[in-house]
Amino acid sequence: MAATSSLSLKTPTKIQSLTKTHYAIPLNLPFSCRSKSKRTGSIGSRTRIRCGLLIEPDGGKLVELFVEESQRELKREDALKLPKIKLTKIDLEWVHVLSEGWASPLKGFMREDEFLQTLHFNSIRLEDGSVVNMSVPIVLAIDDSQKNLIGGSSSVALVDDENNPIAILSDIEIYKHNKEERIARTWGTTAPGLPYVDEAITHSGNWLIGGDLKVIDPVKYNDGLDRFRLSPAELRDEFTRRNADAVFAFQLRNPVHNGHALLMTDTRRRLLEMGYKNPVLLLHPLGGYTKADDVPLHWRMKQHEKVLEDGVLDPETTVVSIFPSPMHYAGPTEVQWHAKARINAGANFYIVGRDPAGMSHPLEKRDLYDADHGKKVLSMAPGLERLNILPFRVAAYDKTKNGMAFFDPSRPQDFIFISGTKMRTLAKNNENPPDGFMCPGGWKVLVEYYDSLAAAENGRVAEPVPS
Amino acid sequence: MAATSSLSLKTPTKIQSLTKTHYAIPLNLPFSCRSKSKRTGSIGSRTRIRCGLLIEPDGGKLVELFVEESQRELKREDALKLPKIKLTKIDLEWVHVLSEGWASPLKGFMREDEFLQTLHFNSIRLEDGSVVNMSVPIVLAIDDSQKNLIGGSSSVALVDDENNPIAILSDIEIYKHNKEERIARTWGTTAPGLPYVDEAITHSGNWLIGGDLKVIDPVKYNDGLDRFRLSPAELRDEFTRRNADAVFAFQLRNPVHNGHALLMTDTRRRLLEMGYKNPVLLLHPLGGYTKADDVPLHWRMKQHEKVLEDGVLDPETTVVSIFPSPMHYAGPTEVQWHAKARINAGANFYIVGRDPAGMSHPLEKRDLYDADHGKKVLSMAPGLERLNILPFRVAAYDKTKNGMAFFDPSRPQDFIFISGTKMRTLAKNNENPPDGFMCPGGWKVLVEYYDSLAAAENGRVAEPVPS
Repeated sequence: MAATSSLSLKTPTKIQSLTKTHYAIPLNLPFSCRSKSKRTGSIGSRTRIRCGLLIEPDGGKLVELFVEESQRELKREDALKLPKIKLTKIDLEWVHVLSEGWASPLKGFMREDEFLQTLHFNSIRLEDGSVVNMSVPIVLAIDDSQKNLIGGSSSVALVDDENNPIAILSDIEIYKHNKEERIARTWGTTAPGLPYVDEAITHSGNWLIGGDLKVIDPVKYNDGLDRFRLSPAELRDEFTRRNADAVFAFQLRNPVHNGHALLMTDTRRRLLEMGYKNPVLLLHPLGGYTKADDVPLHWRMKQHEKVLEDGVLDPETTVVSIFPSPMHYAGPTEVQWHAKARINAGANFYIVGRDPAGMSHPLEKRDLYDADHGKKVLSMAPGLERLNILPFRVAAYDKTKNGMAFFDPSRPQDFIFISGTKMRTLAKNNENPPDGFMCPGGWKVLVEYYDSLAAAENGRVAEPVPS
Repeated sequence: MAATSSLSLKTPTKIQSLTKTHYAIPLNLPFSCRSKSKRTGSIGSRTRIRCGLLIEPDGGKLVELFVEESQRELKREDALKLPKIKLTKIDLEWVHVLSEGWASPLKGFMREDEFLQTLHFNSIRLEDGSVVNMSVPIVLAIDDSQKNLIGGSSSVALVDDENNPIAILSDIEIYKHNKEERIARTWGTTAPGLPYVDEAITHSGNWLIGGDLKVIDPVKYNDGLDRFRLSPAELRDEFTRRNADAVFAFQLRNPVHNGHALLMTDTRRRLLEMGYKNPVLLLHPLGGYTKADDVPLHWRMKQHEKVLEDGVLDPETTVVSIFPSPMHYAGPTEVQWHAKARINAGANFYIVGRDPAGMSHPLEKRDLYDADHGKKVLSMAPGLERLNILPFRVAAYDKTKNGMAFFDPSRPQDFIFISGTKMRTLAKNNENPPDGFMCPGGWKVLVEYYDSLAAAENGRVAEPVPS
């Protein structure tokens, strides 16, 4: 059950034990499962047949967009002859997302009809008339000079910083990038200061280019965490190997505290009560772009490791993996994407919290979204009818138990709510939260992270590095 | 075939001939039609059975929200005991729209689940799992003091300027009115200067109140045009009476020129070619709120009358009626509403033009919407699958024919495009367009309208009044 993927560690990590206990490379698939995929790292475009008890991917099949290994050299040579589009870091994250089928049945960056349906309907109608959810535009922006460069070519090469071809986009369509409309319809505001907008939209080109994507080499980050980046196909294989008859996904981009752990454990208990024999938790931290004041992925993975070492979650029924999507902070719009992508990875239950993918309004003193809208919108979203939505029960620190417990409205005086802001303030000030809020090892990671930030700010080290 | 509804004319009109020839009160319904409705003006809530060959209303039945005539006095007395919400002019237009079933199956002002589905999905899922289109929020805003006044009451009375009870809203739900999010998701911009926003949202309350609507008396405007305000039920009766086997709707809020007439005549020809025996045109000018620089309804009706008198459209196959909705100018979002409402009125074909419901960007020197997005979004919209979308063919002035003709790209030099702006400028300057652009009588109305405006600006008369 040990990880066998080759690693290229740029930074030392102590995260091996997490790999060992909390996910494993699929070995042999049960006979009943017809999926032929293996963790080869070089899988061609293929169709996934519904496997065992797992939920079907959107559109009935998982669409992977890799060039067959035998064709790679040829495609690389083809790419060299094509007009080149240089990918930003976030573009590359979307290439990763698309290539592994998280956005199935999308076959590449959106063409205009997909873009318009996403903006207006948060869903896309397929040729057979069925509807899949798609709430966040997955688009590639180009500027006038790139558009001119492409001219009449029907394909382009997508290249990295050093002009290495990453992928080919073919049968392309170029259409106007109305940024204001895209932002307004995705975020429900055009206020300046939205992190993803500032990072990826404001200074991007005035055109969007859609088409069919073929990725020449699977995207790797070589940051010591690639082995946690299981694709939907790999996750499905893992769930099948574990004979999961229910998969419940927990999306997170923050440190895990014991309230989260309580929720996840309680969810499994409830699923068992419902008659499922082996519900498996997909603990699925988001790994793509996040805003500057979020805890970076490396530190979060380190914190998750400590929490898991603490034994609060059962390794036998927990799979930890990284969700490669960038973060939009688009609240009720984005939570649909977070849920939809997990269907493609085999999850049929999705835990939704208060104000998912929310943030403060960039200008006004209020939350950008109503805290309840995320779960309401998710529960009504087209294309997500098959997914069971599990609203987050509110956990708080119970003074009578010296630990996290579900809030009991009959005795509010016994509970302390510790907000994210409060948690960060404590960690920054090297203070301790109440006993039982978070395991000491996990808390220590947080304190170390904020120490490293303070050190960086004082000019002592340039970059915070996980120790 | 003459209009029999009682009229209360505040302004003299010469529009009688239009009534006489272009619509008629249903007399006897064919035996094959099970609809029991008559033009009584006092119809209770009821269910419409699919009638003859007409398209079914959304949700399978036309939902009318009138108090039964026998119950009116009782309801009026009930209303006097309830907390009162004063309706604005636009609120009253929406009461009108809802009461007649244009928004079927909506049963009143939207509750939060309907509002959220409208904003995010432009559609609403019904209890049976089916989906109807709903792209524009139909909501009623109240302020803090009104909310306090309502307190724990489960019903409110909706009253006019003089506190006369118009309707009762029951089983109410009050929820937050996030104006910024509503505007951004409906218009795709939050730029100041959107007409409907300035008129009806910016200064409205911070709460929305939804609930089940019952209208005590059908809404009348007493402006001489009420007889043109046929409800969906009345239109369906009329189409049935005429044995229409196809109904094609043409939404307009501008003067009709010969290019429009050409298009409508050509559409009928095409429908006949498709095998329909009796396609009927619903010429359906919008009658609710419009922005200040649009030609007012009275002048437009007068202009339509002249155009129709000219005989360009066949009275036997044309029904002229007023669509009571206010105008949002929300482009691709609003065109769905315009189309959906016409399904409820029995139309199964909808003619969509360039940049429907579009306008200039309030701040930037460009159109707010891409001119092609309206028809693209409409053709993909959830809940409108049953509606046949007929894209507007481009008509222009053909110098070789001295008249309007469909543009022939092989001889562009022969055509002159006369934009709305150009048309208005000519009329304002009392100049004539090329012969054959518009019938002289219709053109004269336009010139008169702009004359009256200029006179009003010079302080000679206070209000433009149709002559």
